[in-house]
Amino acid sequence: MPSLKSKADVAIIMGSDSDFPKMENAIQILKDFKVSHHVEVVSAHRTPEKMQKFAKAASGKFKVIIAGAGGAAHLPGMVASYTSLPVIGVPILVGKLKGIDALLSIAQMPSGVPVATVGVDNSKNAGLLAVRILALGSARLKKALSLFEKGQKLKVKKQNSQIATRR
Amino acid sequence: MPSLKSKADVAIIMGSDSDFPKMENAIQILKDFKVSHHVEVVSAHRTPEKMQKFAKAASGKFKVIIAGAGGAAHLPGMVASYTSLPVIGVPILVGKLKGIDALLSIAQMPSGVPVATVGVDNSKNAGLLAVRILALGSARLKKALSLFEKGQKLKVKKQNSQIATRR
Amino acid sequence: MPSLKSKADVAIIMGSDSDFPKMENAIQILKDFKVSHHVEVVSAHRTPEKMQKFAKAASGKFKVIIAGAGGAAHLPGMVASYTSLPVIGVPILVGKLKGIDALLSIAQMPSGVPVATVGVDNSKNAGLLAVRILALGSARLKKALSLFEKGQKLKVKKQNSQIATRR
Amino acid sequence: MPSLKSKADVAIIMGSDSDFPKMENAIQILKDFKVSHHVEVVSAHRTPEKMQKFAKAASGKFKVIIAGAGGAAHLPGMVASYTSLPVIGVPILVGKLKGIDALLSIAQMPSGVPVATVGVDNSKNAGLLAVRILALGSARLKKALSLFEKGQKLKVKKQNSQIATRR
Amino acid sequence: MPSLKSKADVAIIMGSDSDFPKMENAIQILKDFKVSHHVEVVSAHRTPEKMQKFAKAASGKFKVIIAGAGGAAHLPGMVASYTSLPVIGVPILVGKLKGIDALLSIAQMPSGVPVATVGVDNSKNAGLLAVRILALGSARLKKALSLFEKGQKLKVKKQNSQIATRR
Amino acid sequence: MPSLKSKADVAIIMGSDSDFPKMENAIQILKDFKVSHHVEVVSAHRTPEKMQKFAKAASGKFKVIIAGAGGAAHLPGMVASYTSLPVIGVPILVGKLKGIDALLSIAQMPSGVPVATVGVDNSKNAGLLAVRILALGSARLKKALSLFEKGQKLKVKKQNSQIATRR
Amino acid sequence: MPSLKSKADVAIIMGSDSDFPKMENAIQILKDFKVSHHVEVVSAHRTPEKMQKFAKAASGKFKVIIAGAGGAAHLPGMVASYTSLPVIGVPILVGKLKGIDALLSIAQMPSGVPVATVGVDNSKNAGLLAVRILALGSARLKKALSLFEKGQKLKVKKQNSQIATRR
Amino acid sequence: MPSLKSKADVAIIMGSDSDFPKMENAIQILKDFKVSHHVEVVSAHRTPEKMQKFAKAASGKFKVIIAGAGGAAHLPGMVASYTSLPVIGVPILVGKLKGIDALLSIAQMPSGVPVATVGVDNSKNAGLLAVRILALGSARLKKALSLFEKGQKLKVKKQNSQIATRR
Repeated sequence: MPSLKSKADVAIIMGSDSDFPKMENAIQILKDFKVSHHVEVVSAHRTPEKMQKFAKAASGKFKVIIAGAGGAAHLPGMVASYTSLPVIGVPILVGKLKGIDALLSIAQMPSGVPVATVGVDNSKNAGLLAVRILALGSARLKKALSLFEKGQKLKVKKQNSQIATRR
Repeated sequence: MPSLKSKADVAIIMGSDSDFPKMENAIQILKDFKVSHHVEVVSAHRTPEKMQKFAKAASGKFKVIIAGAGGAAHLPGMVASYTSLPVIGVPILVGKLKGIDALLSIAQMPSGVPVATVGVDNSKNAGLLAVRILALGSARLKKALSLFEKGQKLKVKKQNSQIATRR
Repeated sequence: MPSLKSKADVAIIMGSDSDFPKMENAIQILKDFKVSHHVEVVSAHRTPEKMQKFAKAASGKFKVIIAGAGGAAHLPGMVASYTSLPVIGVPILVGKLKGIDALLSIAQMPSGVPVATVGVDNSKNAGLLAVRILALGSARLKKALSLFEKGQKLKVKKQNSQIATRR
Repeated sequence: MPSLKSKADVAIIMGSDSDFPKMENAIQILKDFKVSHHVEVVSAHRTPEKMQKFAKAASGKFKVIIAGAGGAAHLPGMVASYTSLPVIGVPILVGKLKGIDALLSIAQMPSGVPVATVGVDNSKNAGLLAVRILALGSARLKKALSLFEKGQKLKVKKQNSQIATRR
Repeated sequence: MPSLKSKADVAIIMGSDSDFPKMENAIQILKDFKVSHHVEVVSAHRTPEKMQKFAKAASGKFKVIIAGAGGAAHLPGMVASYTSLPVIGVPILVGKLKGIDALLSIAQMPSGVPVATVGVDNSKNAGLLAVRILALGSARLKKALSLFEKGQKLKVKKQNSQIATRR
Repeated sequence: MPSLKSKADVAIIMGSDSDFPKMENAIQILKDFKVSHHVEVVSAHRTPEKMQKFAKAASGKFKVIIAGAGGAAHLPGMVASYTSLPVIGVPILVGKLKGIDALLSIAQMPSGVPVATVGVDNSKNAGLLAVRILALGSARLKKALSLFEKGQKLKVKKQNSQIATRR
Repeated sequence: MPSLKSKADVAIIMGSDSDFPKMENAIQILKDFKVSHHVEVVSAHRTPEKMQKFAKAASGKFKVIIAGAGGAAHLPGMVASYTSLPVIGVPILVGKLKGIDALLSIAQMPSGVPVATVGVDNSKNAGLLAVRILALGSARLKKALSLFEKGQKLKVKKQNSQIATRR
Repeated sequence: MPSLKSKADVAIIMGSDSDFPKMENAIQILKDFKVSHHVEVVSAHRTPEKMQKFAKAASGKFKVIIAGAGGAAHLPGMVASYTSLPVIGVPILVGKLKGIDALLSIAQMPSGVPVATVGVDNSKNAGLLAVRILALGSARLKKALSLFEKGQKLKVKKQNSQIATRR
């Protein structure tokens, strides 16, 4: 069960459980890299006290926080205000403005409180960024990343043989 | 001196004192309408605990809150999360994106936590909106608003005689 | 039947009955909070005289006006020009430009005539903003709002137990 | 003096006398083409009744209306709602959003109430469009337009000889 | 059959027959108002000579031209360069950018060559604008426009009784 | 003197001589690479017949055309409609919309008539693109391009030594 | 099979095989014009070394490169950095931002490294632009282009007879 | 002198020395936190081989890379393709499009190659993000960050006493 007591390398939080399907790619990456992680719905707006408690306690429990939010996406920035852990923000497309509202709400933080923004709905890259950060202190992850990159190259190779066949 | 102890009809807060010149039109409107007001720098990002304390205590001290913020403008939305007073958000043009970042960060709040957004840098309208809200419970303000509107009509009249002269 | 004679705490107007489904969330919120409300189609463009009559008579009948409009959304701003009641504008996505046209047409009002803008299609927040304004003069609504906020927190809690189960 | 009694082929109205410098190119074009014109400040927001009276009386006095407005530019659309004369809207850059707010507020009118929109701050083209419309009923203006177009071609010719010299 | 020989009050042209469904509202309006009209595909890009011939001969055959185009929508502006008739441009949504490309390509014409721009895909308003222009010289159309406006008001009335029933 | 009789490898045209300062970087590049070029003001809107004559005669005189234009920038696309030479379009910032109007008006050409678009005001790249195209048939230019690229690398080297000194 | 050894007039590369359907129009054009071409998946991000090798060897094998990419579309610009062949960039709509991200990422290249940008998803125009460039050195292609343009005109003619029938 | 041999915790690179003034805030933060850093001009476009060499060697020399770039800002994304270190991208406002081009070119990276994007021109936050990442492995930096945050709170306090005085 998600709980404030959990300890993990990465905490993945989101403003609503409707964001869950968008955040699953981050979870999958962390599973693939065998990085321990904690998943929880924490709303900056509907549960501001919980959010504050979560963020203030975070440095004792986690190393990196991934926060997904849509619209006027305040969650990543507010969490970054309460902790000095690295916070990665995932702008989520909700509503009508194609995610550009969330992108600007997360990227345009004031000087003094940084958030590492990734692309709209790109939680996979948030997961990978967390892995890159953790790899600074882990030879295992460094090696895993290099394998991952080889895998990407192989995939391109395979795509080319398929194109050759198809034409 | 700005202080958490102050009582006033309207609290005007802003993320930084560099926002002060942009918020002066709101202050002026409240002075013109003789509405008591409290002015304070409260940063959602640099002083999140202060912001929380301010917002949670607000309903005992104020009736309406005007919050100005730029960039990833989280102040109005976060204050609205901690209080059930009406919160008016003023998107302030800071940095490079012409205020569109602040406008979206304030207007696109999730369902459940409303913020009354006015135009970019238009703190004068924030002040007037506060007066309109307060006028629901004040015959004096109702009358003052009607005088203000007459004043606006007169100004247009005067502009027309000046154009007539100029041509 | 919608009628100019109705008295209610909140008037919900919209430019066309095709906007009705977008405005139903506002109506639902007012029902939930047991706030009396009047619903009417009033088009700034197709029925400008009716709009004027409605707006000029409004202060004798209503306390807050919620106006939804799309495209070159003039209804909220024009109503705000004829009344000194607080007017809440709901930008409605119609046509092709994702509601950004309506958002700017409502938010960027000139100094002197304020409109309280909420997010695109977010009529629920318009309803809640009306409740927050009315709660300034109603202990019942103040209490109801605090219950509503507790409800939102509970919902987040429930979402978390569901995530825990799902994983 | 600008007055509701004036009769003229074209009425040029604007929301504020601060728009006057932007509208002068339209006035100049009408002077160049010797088209009678009436100039007046009419604010949709600050003087809504005056605007309504102006627009409802317009068809007895004018043939074409040019209306300039900035921000949430409601003047052209509202005037077009009260009259069935052709209305030309000039989006004026005021404030921070580069005139895109005014452009959308004027161009995106609902079906049923047309406004002829020209480019941001391009009141010269509004003047020329009025002349093109009036020329449908005036052989003199038809000829004048054809001279104007020759003049434009000559200007390009002259620019080329200057470039030839400069290089 | 569409032909350069046709004479009519209004010519409706478009860059491709794929634009036809978007332009049908303009055709319908002209039918409703019994305004003679000519419909033809004229592509500024694929048939530039035909476009030029069409536009140069237009003043002998038509009074108003409605031109619909999408993307880098050059048709309305180029036709306006070859004729001094009033040209109404309809930005058509094609491709990926929601019509904002066509809107800017039509509205932002250089000073000297005006195009009357209407909203994205709003050919109905283009038709109505043509009728307003033609009504300057036709008592019949003036009366028809006033009937049309009454019809619009009635429609709003009917919508209100339906809402009353539905609730 | 600019003249339709000139023969040159590249024709640089622009809608107005006010665009000249923005186009000078293209001219400079062609001078640097010793590529013969012809410069002329050709307005799609003010001199449409001249534009047509120019474009139809172009394939007998030039190999590549660079066309700069701002706002509703029709010049590159229209020239590309009349010729089958490669046409490079330079979106020029004029007026208020930061050149995004010109960028879309040039880039979003319909399928069938291609224009090679470069960045806003980036006529230098237009010149270089012309050189790259011409180099396909010129060993001299191929060599010159490779020298140019070495020059760019050297400049970066020099910038680094300056930074080293400065710190 | 796609391979670095292939020689062809045009190389068509793309960041992922998911871009293939968007690039097929370019391939079709080259087939129609009987231009030899090579197709390959080359990812700037997932296979940067391969991309570099490809681009550095390109001038010995190809004459023109067409590169399609979406999102932060770096492929065309990076290839243009490693070769001095003309590079045509096709912004591909992937993800949420309607291709505007890819359009800007390709068009806004720094001075010194040009990319010929076409419209979003408009690979057909990329193919045609390549043909126009190659036609500078091929009488056969020059003739084929002129036939193609006649075909476009005929298509418009046929569309008009269909409209005539349909009405 | 900047050199590939340098070892440091953070490498700060930029596309041109004209970006230097925008990147100085990052340098200052690293100086304030006594974090060793290396500064170098590395252009993805003008020196692609150097960029590749730099990025491939980076993991042996640095822990975090901060890369600033404007326009079609490819530097951060390309460096992230060649290394598995965490890369922080700073979108720099150059040219005409207010930095939105750089923001999208950096943030919208494809899945698989993450870049941590900060706000436009906000290199200070890039520096702070690097410090937060390094603090995961450094008790000294953890403490320094907490002092920094106290400093920010004090600054707000001081701003409030100044406002109190000013009014």
